[in-house]
Amino acid sequence: MTTARQLSAPVPPGGMIGILGGGQLGRMLALAAARLGLKAHIFSDVAEAPAFQVSDRHTVAAYDDRAALIDFAAHCDAITYEFENVPARTAAVLAGLKPTYPGARALAVAQDRLEEKTFLKSLGLGTAPFAAVSSVEEARAAFAALGSGPAVLKTRRLGYDGKGQAKVTSANDAAQAFEHFHGAASILESFVDFAFEASVIGARGIAGDFAAYDPPENQHEHHILKRSIVPGKLTGAEGDEAKAIARKVTEALGYVGVIGVELFVTAAGGLLVNEYAPRVHNSGHWTLDACAVSQFEQHIRCVAGWPLGDTARHSDAVMENILGEEAAGWQKLSASGGALHLYGKADIRPGRKMGHITFLSPRPRPR
Amino acid sequence: MTTARQLSAPVPPGGMIGILGGGQLGRMLALAAARLGLKAHIFSDVAEAPAFQVSDRHTVAAYDDRAALIDFAAHCDAITYEFENVPARTAAVLAGLKPTYPGARALAVAQDRLEEKTFLKSLGLGTAPFAAVSSVEEARAAFAALGSGPAVLKTRRLGYDGKGQAKVTSANDAAQAFEHFHGAASILESFVDFAFEASVIGARGIAGDFAAYDPPENQHEHHILKRSIVPGKLTGAEGDEAKAIARKVTEALGYVGVIGVELFVTAAGGLLVNEYAPRVHNSGHWTLDACAVSQFEQHIRCVAGWPLGDTARHSDAVMENILGEEAAGWQKLSASGGALHLYGKADIRPGRKMGHITFLSPRPRPR
Repeated sequence: MTTARQLSAPVPPGGMIGILGGGQLGRMLALAAARLGLKAHIFSDVAEAPAFQVSDRHTVAAYDDRAALIDFAAHCDAITYEFENVPARTAAVLAGLKPTYPGARALAVAQDRLEEKTFLKSLGLGTAPFAAVSSVEEARAAFAALGSGPAVLKTRRLGYDGKGQAKVTSANDAAQAFEHFHGAASILESFVDFAFEASVIGARGIAGDFAAYDPPENQHEHHILKRSIVPGKLTGAEGDEAKAIARKVTEALGYVGVIGVELFVTAAGGLLVNEYAPRVHNSGHWTLDACAVSQFEQHIRCVAGWPLGDTARHSDAVMENILGEEAAGWQKLSASGGALHLYGKADIRPGRKMGHITFLSPRPRPR
Repeated sequence: MTTARQLSAPVPPGGMIGILGGGQLGRMLALAAARLGLKAHIFSDVAEAPAFQVSDRHTVAAYDDRAALIDFAAHCDAITYEFENVPARTAAVLAGLKPTYPGARALAVAQDRLEEKTFLKSLGLGTAPFAAVSSVEEARAAFAALGSGPAVLKTRRLGYDGKGQAKVTSANDAAQAFEHFHGAASILESFVDFAFEASVIGARGIAGDFAAYDPPENQHEHHILKRSIVPGKLTGAEGDEAKAIARKVTEALGYVGVIGVELFVTAAGGLLVNEYAPRVHNSGHWTLDACAVSQFEQHIRCVAGWPLGDTARHSDAVMENILGEEAAGWQKLSASGGALHLYGKADIRPGRKMGHITFLSPRPRPR
């Protein structure tokens, strides 16, 4: 394997940032790059990806199309991605050609729930108790080992938004869920009876500097983020602890870029890390409207080797996702006084993230 | 001349907004359209225009290329422009094909300083005393008629950023300046000994609704805007008067879109209208970072027939233009704590608007 290339100097204005993935995150990254005078080249395996509409160049090809990746890298000064399931070989090809951030280890760990939990635990961070499951027998044994309380079986790879997850309340359940996953390597985690969910959006620059936004409280519906609230219930010393967790994770990974760390907060105020996303995160969308520098610009700053921007918040914010058919209500939403963001997706599908809207408060100075 | 088409319904997300002109204003309009899920098609007579980098489609052709205009219009749901000197025939061709805002009258009046001043005066608004100049004799006579005090001779058409303007202090000066302009039809205006300059960024929607941002105080250097400050010295009743002026102008023009009205404020607090720009305006760039809805989004909302957004300001702001060689200092600027905007222009030229930076205050909640 070739050595990963590193930036030797910041990418200057006019430079090209390559972005793997052309969904709403790639789109908002491209818009943020534009603000800094940088161009974006989107690589997507989907024709007509939303990010193409706002980028200087785009490539439509499979993520394992080596020739297309090489051509893409030739046009880019630095490369990043909008999703964590970038194939390891793809990341390796790109990293050998152009500085690619975050690096391979952050991706590899995030792609495997068992590796991820093991890594988090090794840092001394709190997680739900967990056990590996690679057979029906292990499923039953793991359920017992975790104390026979309610638990969640998750496939180790490729799960998101509640997909590849099943709640289990008996050893039989656990065995059946494993079979339902077609025997895919899995992890059983004790069910966390959390008081609420939160996250922290941190950023680590190329020089190792770190900054985090105030941690939002997150509300999910049907396993999909519905609402992020800042400030939420995670404030003061607990909020600082959340930021320290993100810092610890990024330092241990030698991370460059924005990271989203998802947390469970227990009734006693304990913070358990659920998982991290090695990318910009849905629960950070409010930063577009409530901060001078958004998570998207912050990520581009990291990837381009620029200094981190200010993460201070000028307004309180409630961000709501616009999911599926809710997007048909765009006229009403556009008149609601919120800051509306629509993602340029042609087709409405149930649960699909079509946009978001952020309400700022206090509604400020009189006009 | 064909009738100008009007929008019969709002352009829905996914629709295409046509924008004549591909400079920084077109670029920021395209970025604002993207935020609302709308696509942008840029028409520019310059290859590699900055706005192309962030738009879905673009056309490079002369503004009088009728076939290119017709093809452009065929791809658009509504059309607007980033500059006031759109040729009248161009605007007429487009307006006959697709809803084009602001309308022909707003353009025509703005393109002729004599018509513009006459129009403003007819509304009962204060302006500097002025007189038409179309000959050397008229230049001398006008100077005398205005009281023989210092005055400014301006060509009626195509002046901007101090070009086509000369300060004169005698009848001979006035005559010479007119000759220096090669006898171009001109207007002589009494020099206004203003206390400061200000502007108001207003918006009129397709239903006739109106909203304005708080008026910035503007500081110019070498006839180019250097700094806009909000709140500046124009506040309270005077600020309300400024907004009322913008409203009056837009109503008289049957205007749709964002307008920038430039004002001189005298030591006694009187407001004199210098000119209006039928487009988004440099002195409104701070709205990108200090308001939930920027002037660019506001303009797109108007052109697409959407409701006006909230013009409330969540932060105080100082916007500084980054001119010419100042852009070479992008690394320092990127670390200054301001919200940095660079325009994707490849070549630095003296005085060229390369970007801007907005500093928000009070620097808000502690992190």
